[in-house]
Amino acid sequence: VDAMANSGAAAGLRERLRIRAGGFKGSTAGLAPGNVQANLVILPRDLAQDFLHFTVANPKPCPLLAVSRAGDPHLPTLAEDVDIRTDLPRYRIWRNGELTDEASDLMSLWRDDFVSFAIGCSFSFEEALVDGGLEIRHLACGSNVPMYRTNRACVPAGVFRGPLVVSMRPFTPADAIRAIQITSRFPTVHGAPVHIGLPEALGIADLAKPDYGDAVPVHAGELPVFWACGVTPQAVVVETKPDICVTHAPGCMLITDLRNAQLAML
Amino acid sequence: VDAMANSGAAAGLRERLRIRAGGFKGSTAGLAPGNVQANLVILPRDLAQDFLHFTVANPKPCPLLAVSRAGDPHLPTLAEDVDIRTDLPRYRIWRNGELTDEASDLMSLWRDDFVSFAIGCSFSFEEALVDGGLEIRHLACGSNVPMYRTNRACVPAGVFRGPLVVSMRPFTPADAIRAIQITSRFPTVHGAPVHIGLPEALGIADLAKPDYGDAVPVHAGELPVFWACGVTPQAVVVETKPDICVTHAPGCMLITDLRNAQLAML
Repeated sequence: VDAMANSGAAAGLRERLRIRAGGFKGSTAGLAPGNVQANLVILPRDLAQDFLHFTVANPKPCPLLAVSRAGDPHLPTLAEDVDIRTDLPRYRIWRNGELTDEASDLMSLWRDDFVSFAIGCSFSFEEALVDGGLEIRHLACGSNVPMYRTNRACVPAGVFRGPLVVSMRPFTPADAIRAIQITSRFPTVHGAPVHIGLPEALGIADLAKPDYGDAVPVHAGELPVFWACGVTPQAVVVETKPDICVTHAPGCMLITDLRNAQLAML
Repeated sequence: VDAMANSGAAAGLRERLRIRAGGFKGSTAGLAPGNVQANLVILPRDLAQDFLHFTVANPKPCPLLAVSRAGDPHLPTLAEDVDIRTDLPRYRIWRNGELTDEASDLMSLWRDDFVSFAIGCSFSFEEALVDGGLEIRHLACGSNVPMYRTNRACVPAGVFRGPLVVSMRPFTPADAIRAIQITSRFPTVHGAPVHIGLPEALGIADLAKPDYGDAVPVHAGELPVFWACGVTPQAVVVETKPDICVTHAPGCMLITDLRNAQLAML
């Protein structure tokens, strides 16, 4: 475990330093392989308490890996050196529920009441699926995972409310069963699927028209399998309209020193 | 564990004594709740070695709980007192692949080259599903589980070959995912499903026409979930046509002293 943790720390630090120095603005997919990457939500302290309750009430879309103290840009349980203001390649700034800006760092925007939430990301369980011999369609296509707003409401908490967003990966029935088994081991990165096989039951009229990401082909003999998705907080922000909220830009995650294998329950 | 094992032994012995005395000829479903019940296959020694290889090659339909020595009617690892000749309510006698007789005991039929195979039964995982809060449709209907011959061949071994037989239970997608998680813990009683959602991929043209057992309604918004079934050996016997084979009659299982909870992997 020490050797594993050390290799994760070295690779994680290397990538964070590169991003922190401004030398990398792209997707973090595939960087520091085996390291946990995280979705980011930043909110002012007066909203953060409600959002913390929201994550507790909705652990499938919002599995919380770490939360900071107000004004503190560090998340030392994820990596000692993390500076949340500089360590993601790109950020999105949301004002009153609308995406108003992207930024490559938060140095000028940072406030001493900002609270950071690091939320588990599907990159972790996708690694476990690939290690398990399964083909992940959007990776084979070189595209982003298709994501859909559903007709299911998250459990509201304080001011926060909104729809559950799901990601979809098609599998043959036998592979779908295996995917359920594998991802059940990783509850802190969305865990088991929330749905399988019947998109209309989630209010998804057309799998070819995702609300986020890219459509992927679902072949004859395959079932669509749906996982709760870390984009849910962005849909919630759009609906809740906080004065200000910062998130990661799509695919531009926080690279931590934790190892995906360390998250396995079993 | 000792207390659990003792309670299993007391209830198991009570039911076996009643059956052994000839006082009970019905289904063992619901008897000695929590105790493992087993499918039975008896074959002459000259075929038993091939059949043992068949069970090893096909652990999902034929998870082996115990196998006897030739001529020995006891299976002491399942319960000290078991006499396989008398302890099931009813038996089926198959000659050259055809069901020729039923018997309430095997005292006159017994041969000193008979080898008994006790194979895991879905009663065990159904108990875990019910404990998990899931409704099992055929239990709600008071009927037998629907079973289907599939277009999938078992892995042949020696003279034994034949189709995989599956049992089907319909669930909503969320309950299907939960059922996969729960039954994955019980590999010695068929374990996780082998298929979900697309009966035509198994060569099942009409769910309303099972090959064994009774049809059950599959409601809108539900998926059929398919488990490998302990009736597979009977389909194999029909195809392989051994001179003689004895099995349990449908629903008339061997009640052991093992507890279902003892079979859980996790």
